[in-house]
Amino acid sequence: MEPFLIQESKTKPSASVFSELVKKLAPVKGSTDPFCCVAEELQLVEQNLTRSIRSAERALTDISSHLIYGGGKRIRPMVTLLAFKAFGGTRLPEIVDIATAIELIHTATLLHDDIIDGADIRRGKESAYKKFGLKATLVAGDFLFIKAFEFAGKFDETIVQWTADACTQLTEGEILQGFFNRNPAVKLENYFEIVRRKTASLFETGARIGAYLSGAKPAMVEQMGDYGLNLGIAFQIIDDVLDVVGHKELLGKPTGMDLRDGNPSLPIILALGEGQKDVSETFQCSRPTDEKIRAALAIMGQARAIDKAKMLSRGYAERAYKPLKSVPPSLYRTSLKNLLQLIIERDF
Amino acid sequence: MEPFLIQESKTKPSASVFSELVKKLAPVKGSTDPFCCVAEELQLVEQNLTRSIRSAERALTDISSHLIYGGGKRIRPMVTLLAFKAFGGTRLPEIVDIATAIELIHTATLLHDDIIDGADIRRGKESAYKKFGLKATLVAGDFLFIKAFEFAGKFDETIVQWTADACTQLTEGEILQGFFNRNPAVKLENYFEIVRRKTASLFETGARIGAYLSGAKPAMVEQMGDYGLNLGIAFQIIDDVLDVVGHKELLGKPTGMDLRDGNPSLPIILALGEGQKDVSETFQCSRPTDEKIRAALAIMGQARAIDKAKMLSRGYAERAYKPLKSVPPSLYRTSLKNLLQLIIERDF
Repeated sequence: MEPFLIQESKTKPSASVFSELVKKLAPVKGSTDPFCCVAEELQLVEQNLTRSIRSAERALTDISSHLIYGGGKRIRPMVTLLAFKAFGGTRLPEIVDIATAIELIHTATLLHDDIIDGADIRRGKESAYKKFGLKATLVAGDFLFIKAFEFAGKFDETIVQWTADACTQLTEGEILQGFFNRNPAVKLENYFEIVRRKTASLFETGARIGAYLSGAKPAMVEQMGDYGLNLGIAFQIIDDVLDVVGHKELLGKPTGMDLRDGNPSLPIILALGEGQKDVSETFQCSRPTDEKIRAALAIMGQARAIDKAKMLSRGYAERAYKPLKSVPPSLYRTSLKNLLQLIIERDF
Repeated sequence: MEPFLIQESKTKPSASVFSELVKKLAPVKGSTDPFCCVAEELQLVEQNLTRSIRSAERALTDISSHLIYGGGKRIRPMVTLLAFKAFGGTRLPEIVDIATAIELIHTATLLHDDIIDGADIRRGKESAYKKFGLKATLVAGDFLFIKAFEFAGKFDETIVQWTADACTQLTEGEILQGFFNRNPAVKLENYFEIVRRKTASLFETGARIGAYLSGAKPAMVEQMGDYGLNLGIAFQIIDDVLDVVGHKELLGKPTGMDLRDGNPSLPIILALGEGQKDVSETFQCSRPTDEKIRAALAIMGQARAIDKAKMLSRGYAERAYKPLKSVPPSLYRTSLKNLLQLIIERDF
């Protein structure tokens, strides 16, 4: 198998390959998501999503559409589909349904997260919470959870249990994050516990179910779960990094949101560990001014926090890479590998 | 079969029988719910509920417990169990699991409803929203939905679809109710549409699944769905009536909540139809004073609105009674019938 790109800078694909990948991963418009080898399957997921958010109450469809057609990267369904294809899975309708369920769960949590964070902006535009208000957005989140249940509930007990466990972890991660909100006592181990539950669990479950539905051996199913888990952690770390050093236009939202909301991101925790007083003060402040946030971001951007965070992300990408070595070579395995590289190098 | 009690006042059971039933329906404490012929099964539901709300995050268990042990009447699981037993159902663990799912769904919606209504009081004590705050309560509602999914997702596609459809209706009913909040254009047909979706659908689904899991014939499964639907509507109407003429101590909450929240209850809609100006003004007022609410309640209490509402509730109880005629005579059928009487005569 070819060496992992992160470790072998010589074999690193040219910028153009990545920009091509990035372009392909760009926000979805309408019902197309052209990511190379699972483009067709992702289109079926899009069709499922469109069908599932139809409701007798237009508000539910409108709020769901606002987010679902609002530029999601569809990385979770993509990982699910790739894991399935990598082991020669053929029962397409099944995997498409479960990939749909996973994206619906993700979208439901985004709606509820925006309420929890009081977020004004999501994916470059007004958040549903801001646009449609708390009440309707809360109900629309429930609606999407229910639609996910409709898809996932038709599978066997194993899949139902895995999916439910992932969802339970999402809620537990949210509570844990709330506990460490603006809390300078937060440690690295708390961060990884939050990320494991709140972000990585859904990636893990998608990858595991993908392998399981393809008929892969139990050991490989577990390995793919490991891939998803570590990819999810790497993904979240880069999200945190971009909230410090990213560009508003590419991100679709202003930077500094974690400081503003008091969410314990990795760069913040690392900066706290370095004894960065201004960062600590801004993090603990219940309504930090824009000026304070800008100053804290500047400090974090220059501090070792960002480099350390990127290094940690790379470490998790490498851990995700390991299980891929036992996957038979194919276009799909290569995609799973490239996805890791793309995720840690992305700027949006 | 004996005549329906509502129609035949001569055969109406003595007050003591009802007070006994009422006592048996009284708020559940801990793991006992002694409602006569399904007491044992309801205890298994309690055990399921206790197990299912255990979480690594104590806040989720605390918030769930606050509501689950907070005096729920367990009428939905009771209807589900009675419908099952009435057709000789024997696979006990199955029906207990689905009855648990139905109660969990109901509890989840109560948590989210309290956020939507900004309710301070629920079941005679501080609401979870007031006690634990919006964020944690929102997440705890999601957590309970997920636990319901864990129970319901293990059944066949038919049950999964029925349960998902009921949940979808709950969300649609909530949106529709929001649309008619403080809206004097609300008509009786809107009211019944809201109640059908927001309250009755879960009763309907519980009763239908109960009959289905017992192996009853499809026609009877539908009939039991009819029973649940009409019982649910009768139940909600009396809830609305009690919000006008009930007693705070028995209800566990102050009266006049619908006027305060601007929820279009049946007595309000009927009073609007009678041209009661003070009721109309108070209903439309975004923050009505206690004095205004008291005055509007006094008017509604004296007006024909309450009598009319009670008559409508009785009509739905009668509709619910009809399908029972085809159920083979048994202790369970008698209980299903008595439950109707109890529901329309209750004062809490």
